Amino acid sequence: MSVASPAARPVLISGSWKDAAVESTFQATDPNRNAKLDPVFPVSGWSDCDAALDAAVEAAKELRRLPTARIATFLETYADKIDAAKDSLVEAAFAETGLARSPRLADVELPRTSNQLRAAAAACRSGSWSMPTIDTAAGIRSCFVPLGPVCVFGPNNFPFAFGSVSGGDFAAAIAAGNPVIGKANSSHPETTRLFAELAAEAIAETGLPAATVQLIYRTSHADGERLVSDPRVGATGYTGSRSAGLKLKAAADKAGKPIYLELSSVNPVVITPGSLAERGEAIVNDFVTSVLMGAGQFCTNPGMVMLVAGEETDRFIAAVKDRFASSAAGTLLSPAVASSLGKSVETLVGFGASLLTGGGDAETDRCAMANTLMSVDGKTFLTNPEGFQTEAFGNASLMVVADDLTQLCEAIGHLEGNLTGCIYSANDGSEESDVDAIAFELEPKVGRLLNDKMPTGVAVSAAMNHGGPYPATGHPGFTAVGIPGSLVRFGKLTSFDNVRPSRLPVWLRDAAPTEGTYRLIDGKWRTGDV
Amino acid sequence: MSVASPAARPVLISGSWKDAAVESTFQATDPNRNAKLDPVFPVSGWSDCDAALDAAVEAAKELRRLPTARIATFLETYADKIDAAKDSLVEAAFAETGLARSPRLADVELPRTSNQLRAAAAACRSGSWSMPTIDTAAGIRSCFVPLGPVCVFGPNNFPFAFGSVSGGDFAAAIAAGNPVIGKANSSHPETTRLFAELAAEAIAETGLPAATVQLIYRTSHADGERLVSDPRVGATGYTGSRSAGLKLKAAADKAGKPIYLELSSVNPVVITPGSLAERGEAIVNDFVTSVLMGAGQFCTNPGMVMLVAGEETDRFIAAVKDRFASSAAGTLLSPAVASSLGKSVETLVGFGASLLTGGGDAETDRCAMANTLMSVDGKTFLTNPEGFQTEAFGNASLMVVADDLTQLCEAIGHLEGNLTGCIYSANDGSEESDVDAIAFELEPKVGRLLNDKMPTGVAVSAAMNHGGPYPATGHPGFTAVGIPGSLVRFGKLTSFDNVRPSRLPVWLRDAAPTEGTYRLIDGKWRTGDV
Repeated sequence: MSVASPAARPVLISGSWKDAAVESTFQATDPNRNAKLDPVFPVSGWSDCDAALDAAVEAAKELRRLPTARIATFLETYADKIDAAKDSLVEAAFAETGLARSPRLADVELPRTSNQLRAAAAACRSGSWSMPTIDTAAGIRSCFVPLGPVCVFGPNNFPFAFGSVSGGDFAAAIAAGNPVIGKANSSHPETTRLFAELAAEAIAETGLPAATVQLIYRTSHADGERLVSDPRVGATGYTGSRSAGLKLKAAADKAGKPIYLELSSVNPVVITPGSLAERGEAIVNDFVTSVLMGAGQFCTNPGMVMLVAGEETDRFIAAVKDRFASSAAGTLLSPAVASSLGKSVETLVGFGASLLTGGGDAETDRCAMANTLMSVDGKTFLTNPEGFQTEAFGNASLMVVADDLTQLCEAIGHLEGNLTGCIYSANDGSEESDVDAIAFELEPKVGRLLNDKMPTGVAVSAAMNHGGPYPATGHPGFTAVGIPGSLVRFGKLTSFDNVRPSRLPVWLRDAAPTEGTYRLIDGKWRTGDV
Repeated sequence: MSVASPAARPVLISGSWKDAAVESTFQATDPNRNAKLDPVFPVSGWSDCDAALDAAVEAAKELRRLPTARIATFLETYADKIDAAKDSLVEAAFAETGLARSPRLADVELPRTSNQLRAAAAACRSGSWSMPTIDTAAGIRSCFVPLGPVCVFGPNNFPFAFGSVSGGDFAAAIAAGNPVIGKANSSHPETTRLFAELAAEAIAETGLPAATVQLIYRTSHADGERLVSDPRVGATGYTGSRSAGLKLKAAADKAGKPIYLELSSVNPVVITPGSLAERGEAIVNDFVTSVLMGAGQFCTNPGMVMLVAGEETDRFIAAVKDRFASSAAGTLLSPAVASSLGKSVETLVGFGASLLTGGGDAETDRCAMANTLMSVDGKTFLTNPEGFQTEAFGNASLMVVADDLTQLCEAIGHLEGNLTGCIYSANDGSEESDVDAIAFELEPKVGRLLNDKMPTGVAVSAAMNHGGPYPATGHPGFTAVGIPGSLVRFGKLTSFDNVRPSRLPVWLRDAAPTEGTYRLIDGKWRTGDV
C-alpha cells in the first residue's frame, strides 16, 4: 500500500537514514509568514514503526551490556554538538515555530537543552537516580534498571528543551539506559531532524548501538496507538494536547504499558486583595510578562487568575487590560494553534465569560491573535467550573472574580488537576489565615505550589515537579522535569534476592560504584562501600 | 431498591457500624468442612460507597491537619490490639480460609501483620518515605504528600498480612496520611470485620478522624468500577485475580486514577543441570516445600519450573512426582479456588501438558485437590507460550523441559511479567556463562530475581520488590511490600516553589523534622537541619 517517495525526508532507523514507508506527506508552516515551508516529510506506515521497534529491542539489549559511563559520554558528546550547531538549530526552529531567535531560542532554550543533557549524563554516571537499596541482613538488594525502548512524542512549544530526540523525556530515557524512538512534532520536523543527525553522529563517535536514537516524523493515529501499546515498548513519554494524549493513554493502559503524559493545564494564580493593595503594579507587571511571554505558549502559562471582588481587583484587571491592548501580539506556533486558541476563547465567551480585550485576529500576516483577556464572576464560574477551565493555549487569560474568600475557596475546590498553582498575598502577614485556607484547597490540585511568583519558569532542579494530578498528567507521582526524578519513570524496580555477588549490577555490589553514588544501605542513605 | 436487612452484618461507615444498603447477601465457606458459615454479609449498594467516599474526603482533610505522629500512634495502637486479639483472629481466619492455625496464622502471618503496621508507623514518623528534596539555590523544595482516600481490595490468600484493613496496602496508605475504604475479600469477611473493629477502637483511642478506616464487604462489579474511578478517590490498591483486576484497572485508568494491582504470576524457577548434579535432593526438597506450602496459595508460588532435558532433570522430576503423590493435599481457600485450579489444570493439559500426578479431587471433605504435577517439552511450550503460562493457583506446578540452553532462553524470552524469577545453578562456578544468558533473559520479566532460593518468602525489607512488569502488576515501578517503597504509591509529588518558610510542610522546613529523617539537601542525602 505504501511506496517510497523520493520527495519525502528519510527516517532514521537503526542508524541509517532510510526512505520512509510513506503513507502520505506533510509540510510544516512558517508562522512568521503563515506559509508552508519547502521540506516534505513522510507520514510513516506501520512498517517503519515495526522496523524501529525491532532495532530498539536489540539496542536495549546491547545497552544493558555497556558500562553506564559510555551512555553518559554519548549524552555529553551530543550536548557539545548541539552547542556547536546552535546557529543552524536556531534558524530551523525560528522558521518552524516563530519563537524569537534571541533570547528565547539561542540564549535560553538551547543552553537549557544541552545542559539538561549534561545533567542527565551526570545522573547516569552516579547512578543515584536508580535508588540502590541494600539490606545486608536480609540479603536483598534493589534498584531501578532500564525498562526497555521508550517512545517520545514531543510537543510543539519547545522544539529544543522538550524535543523528541533532544528534550527532557529523551534525556531521562537515555540516561536511564534505554533507546528512544522519537516521534517528531509535526510543527517542527526539520528542527527535530537536525537534532537526530547530531545524535547519530554522537552515537557513532561514542560507539553506542546504532538504534539508540531513532526518528520518525508522523504516523496515523491508529499506528500511534499501536506503537505505544506494542509489546516491544518499555514506556512512552508524551507532551501535547489532551485529546491526542488521552487516546494514546487508553491504548497504552490497555496493554499495561506505562505512559507518562503532560497534558493541559490552566495554572491558576490566586491574587489576594492584600497583595494588590501592597504591590499591585509589580504584580500586574509579573503577570503580563509571564502570560504574554512566547505568546503564552507555555505548559505553565497562567491561563486563569482567581481574585476577590473589590477596588484593588478592579484596578488590577483594568491595568492588565491596558497592557494586553497595548502590547504587540506574539507569533503563535502554527495556524492550528491560532485556530484552537480562537475556538477556546469562543467557547469561554459562550459559557458566559466577558471579553475585556482581544478575541480576534491580530492585524498581521503572522500566525497571531490579539492578546485576549476575559473575566467571569465567581457565581457564574461555579455554574460550570469544568467549562470555564477550557484551556486557551496562547496569549489569553481568564480572570475569575469571586465575591469573597469563601466563594474563592469553593471555586478552587472545583479545579481540575494542574501543573502549577500560585498564591500572591500580602507581605505584612495580615492574610496568613486566608492564605492557609486557599493553599489547603489549592495544593491538592497542583503539582507545584508557588508563592509570590509566576509559574512560567521551570527550573531543572532535583526539587522540581513538572507534573500534577490528572488531567494535567496521567499520574500524580512523577515529574517530567528535574533530575534525578524524571529518570525513574523509565526504570523497572528490581530486587536481587540472594543473588551471588559477582552477578549483581554494579550499583548493588559491596564496592561503591562511584564516589558520589548515594545508596540506602541498611536504612541509611550514604556514599561509600557497603 | 435496597432495604436494610437485620440479618446482614453492618458496614463500618464514618466510625459507626450501620445497616448496609443491602442489594443481596452472601456467606463465606469453611473450606475445612466445605460448608457455609453462619454469618450473613451484605452486598452493598452504591449508597454505602457514596457515604464512605464522602466521609473519607472529610477524614482526608482532617488527617492533613494532624501531626503525623498521631497517625503513627494509631498504627502502633492498632498493632498492639491485633497482637492481643490473636486467638479470635486466628480462629476466625482458620474457619474462613482453612489455613493452618499454627504456625501459619498465629506464628507467621499475625506477627508479620502487626510488625508491618509498626514498620509503617516508623516510616510515617520519620517521613523519609516522602523523599523530601531541598534545593536552596533554586528556592524549591519537594516531597510526596497524601494523595487522598485509598480503596483497598484485599486478596483471599492472606487474611491478615494483605487484609483490606490490616495488610500491606492498608498500612502503606494510612502511613502516607490517607484514609482507607476497605473492601473485604468475600472469602474471609468475618476476619476482616474483626480487624475493622480493632481499628475503630484504635481510632477512637488515638483521636483520629472516625472515617480513617471504613469497611464494606462486597459490591456489584459495576459499583466496584464506579468506586475506583470516583473523583473523590485518590488511588486504589488491589490484590486478586487478573480478570477482576483488569476490569477495575480499565475503569480507574479511564478516570485518571492510580490503581496498584497485584495480579497473577507463575514465578518461573530455572534449575540448571549443574545444580541438580551437585545438590539435586536438596533442590527437590526446597521446591516441594515451597510449592506445596499453604497448598500453593501464594502470589509467589513457583508454578513453573524450567529445566534442560537430561538425566538429572529426569531424576528431579521423578523425585518431585513421588513427593507430590505421597504428600497430603493441603486445604484450598474456597470452593471457588478449587474449581479454578481444576479448570486451569484442564486448560494446561488441553494445550498439551502431560499430567504426571494429581489432576483430580483429593479424597477428603475439605476443599482440596490432589497435588498436581504437569510437564511439557520446550518445543511444545514454544507453540503456545501464553497458554502454558495459564496460572494454576494452588498446589500445582508445570515443568517445562527444554532441549538445550538455547531453547531454554528462547522460552524465557516468551515469559510474561512475573513477580519473581529464580535461578538455581552449580556452586562450583562452572555454569556462570549459562547463568548469565539465562539471567539476561529472565531479569526483564520479573520484579525480583532470586538465586538458589525459592520465591515464596517475601521479606518486609526496604530492598524488597513485590511487584513486576505487567501483567504481574499494573506498573513496573512500584512495590506492594517493603517500607518505605510501598508508601510512595499513595503520595502526590509536590513542589513548593518560593513558598514562604512558615507555610512549608514540616518535612521541608530548615529544621530537621526528626533526628532520623533523611532528606536530599542540595544533592546530598542526609539527616539534620538545612
